[in-house]
Amino acid sequence: MRYQRPKGTADILPDEAKKWTYVEETARMLFNDYRYQEIRTPMFENFDVFSRTSGDTSDIVTKEMYDFKDKGDRHMSLRPEGTAGVVRAFVENKLYGPEHPRPIKVFYMGSMFRYERPQSGRQREFHQIGVEAFGSNEPELDVEVMAMGMDLLSHFGLSGLKLTINSLGDQASRAAYRQALIDYLDPHFDELSEDSKVRLHKNPLRVLDSKDKHDQEIVKGAPSILDYLNEDSKKHFDQVKHLLDALKIPYVIDPDMVRGLDYYTHTIFEIMVDSKALGEGYTTICAGGRYNGLVEQLGGPEMPGIGFGLGMERLMVLMEAQKVKFPVLDQLDAYVVGIGEQTSLETLQIVQSLRSDGFAADRDYLDRKPKAQFKTANKLNAQFTITIGESELKAKTANVKSMASGKEVTVPISEILQDFDTVLTKYFNDKEID
Amino acid sequence: MRYQRPKGTADILPDEAKKWTYVEETARMLFNDYRYQEIRTPMFENFDVFSRTSGDTSDIVTKEMYDFKDKGDRHMSLRPEGTAGVVRAFVENKLYGPEHPRPIKVFYMGSMFRYERPQSGRQREFHQIGVEAFGSNEPELDVEVMAMGMDLLSHFGLSGLKLTINSLGDQASRAAYRQALIDYLDPHFDELSEDSKVRLHKNPLRVLDSKDKHDQEIVKGAPSILDYLNEDSKKHFDQVKHLLDALKIPYVIDPDMVRGLDYYTHTIFEIMVDSKALGEGYTTICAGGRYNGLVEQLGGPEMPGIGFGLGMERLMVLMEAQKVKFPVLDQLDAYVVGIGEQTSLETLQIVQSLRSDGFAADRDYLDRKPKAQFKTANKLNAQFTITIGESELKAKTANVKSMASGKEVTVPISEILQDFDTVLTKYFNDKEID
Repeated sequence: MRYQRPKGTADILPDEAKKWTYVEETARMLFNDYRYQEIRTPMFENFDVFSRTSGDTSDIVTKEMYDFKDKGDRHMSLRPEGTAGVVRAFVENKLYGPEHPRPIKVFYMGSMFRYERPQSGRQREFHQIGVEAFGSNEPELDVEVMAMGMDLLSHFGLSGLKLTINSLGDQASRAAYRQALIDYLDPHFDELSEDSKVRLHKNPLRVLDSKDKHDQEIVKGAPSILDYLNEDSKKHFDQVKHLLDALKIPYVIDPDMVRGLDYYTHTIFEIMVDSKALGEGYTTICAGGRYNGLVEQLGGPEMPGIGFGLGMERLMVLMEAQKVKFPVLDQLDAYVVGIGEQTSLETLQIVQSLRSDGFAADRDYLDRKPKAQFKTANKLNAQFTITIGESELKAKTANVKSMASGKEVTVPISEILQDFDTVLTKYFNDKEID
Repeated sequence: MRYQRPKGTADILPDEAKKWTYVEETARMLFNDYRYQEIRTPMFENFDVFSRTSGDTSDIVTKEMYDFKDKGDRHMSLRPEGTAGVVRAFVENKLYGPEHPRPIKVFYMGSMFRYERPQSGRQREFHQIGVEAFGSNEPELDVEVMAMGMDLLSHFGLSGLKLTINSLGDQASRAAYRQALIDYLDPHFDELSEDSKVRLHKNPLRVLDSKDKHDQEIVKGAPSILDYLNEDSKKHFDQVKHLLDALKIPYVIDPDMVRGLDYYTHTIFEIMVDSKALGEGYTTICAGGRYNGLVEQLGGPEMPGIGFGLGMERLMVLMEAQKVKFPVLDQLDAYVVGIGEQTSLETLQIVQSLRSDGFAADRDYLDRKPKAQFKTANKLNAQFTITIGESELKAKTANVKSMASGKEVTVPISEILQDFDTVLTKYFNDKEID
């Protein structure tokens, strides 16, 4: 019987997986330069960890969670995003303790899950790279995080990026704005879409996000969050803008950007790109912001946090669309050809010896004719072939040939087993050794 | 409220995660030398994929599967091991097609899951690295896979490894032996443990594995699989031994080793180690073998396969126990100290400039006093400090100090922003630049 992968999941095959590895390794190196360290949390958590942090009204909790009952009747969920699990781990492992220099800066990468309606075309298992920094309220850190997001995407050779920022202010500013928004929207209550009616008193900021055309008309006249920032919040946001200017990082301010999750405070941002491959107009490739209440909400001390998340699938689509070059490690240094069954032992010895010297090497494992073996060497773009036939076997030699120049030399097998590097420098020139 | 990670899962914190990354990157490099390429499959599959391939009588299916009903009432399971998903992907994506040079060689690494009884102390989410090679029946490939497993563990600096091998022969040999084993065990039926009674007619080879003391007594007199290998199977196994000898890879033959899964044929092997950290006597760290019916079982063509799996958690315990050195990337090249609030812009510019030149650099984000900043630089073992105070700010210079030699120089900020590499070679010697 034939089996299929589960709906909404993907197999990442070798040609694709190489590109993913390149992206992940590049991110690792860059995060290291910024002193962010990796943290790995479980693929699933208790359902409450996500419902608590995402807020009951968010789409994630009400519609999209990949939750299930385990065999012990516990309500579990595959993780829908990275932040909640990282914060849970941060609190549970007491990474807020005085022995950890602050800010504590971490990154993660891996699978995330949502139980999407299949017709949406979105995946049930998808992948994110994200960062979180805990323990500093300084605007400098906001700017570092945004700069790092831009830096990462630039490292991948992407162009046409746009950094969009906004401030939701501190709790007091946000509460004042929330009330102002309710006061403005309430008279329009009957005209609002059903979704927005539900949200109006639970989480009115989400009405600003509505995709309903008529909602959008009403929202146009709504007050702006930026007019409700108190002194501290305004100062924080001004410094963020000042520092972005100083670092020559272009940005635009979008006062209507509010984000799906309830826990953001102060700076929120999205890195957007105008690419048809991802949809019409500017769409978001990386999104983040400050969340100054989240650590406390999960049982930790009062401690600010900030981070971003980046969707791997969208990033890969974008990189392909922009024809970015992937400097992928895929060289075959040598293919060892054996002519006749009795050479099998020697070819295996040579291939193993090369590998233990750090060369990528291969041979035939199908008992194929020499012609087929040379064809494979060509197809795999081998730099060198090393051939042993009956006469070579008797003489304990092998024929080493540069595929680039066509130069061939006869070399004692013992020299090859000793050190292939020496063989190369002795018989070939720099152009032949890549 | 405080939350805990789910029972049987672990958080991998930064100090630990670095070591995992080192292990994974080393494996990637080595697999590349052997021309194995990465494949990534979903975290969950339809339950049938695992029940079909593991066999109904295996412990994995009967006791340990982390399965659940999804919201569409589908019977799903988090993957208990890597092979079944890889074979499913291999078949579904037609990697057996003529455009793929054979053998098709892949590797995987990632989370696996089992719903263990909690008292067992085993994790519900654990991690494996594994390889699979499809499309060749040659003993040379068996030896390559075993050599690669040994090579990988040796790369990690592990000692005291023991390669144990056995052959289960082809289907015909295995069937003949199965009958011989039933004939031998049947007269002892009443004396067998309950588990073994169940297994006797379903999968009698598993009785050889029994941990029951009395079962083990009975099994001592049982016939050996090696006496039931037919001509072809014997020839295959002889060649495996011959090639291992030629590569000078020591091994022992254990005719009682049968493995938990039903699908193995011909060569099976385990790499074992005698380490108290893992249990009494020799315990298994890596296990694999040939499975010549599995691709067909999952709807593909008749095609042989061979692979191994390696438990990450056990590997890490072993490496710690053997005090293996992890060459971990963790250097802080420069810590930028700002004295006074008004230097914040310049220190951020410098830190960003260094990072974009590929240096690992950091600064303070807590508005701390100079003394605390220098303390952090020391604690993080920074190679250089770059300090800007009021007078430096006026003069547009910074103080660059080598923490190793104590040498300090005053350098124009513009030179640092231009290229820190040049600053280093201009003012410092090789010993100071690491």
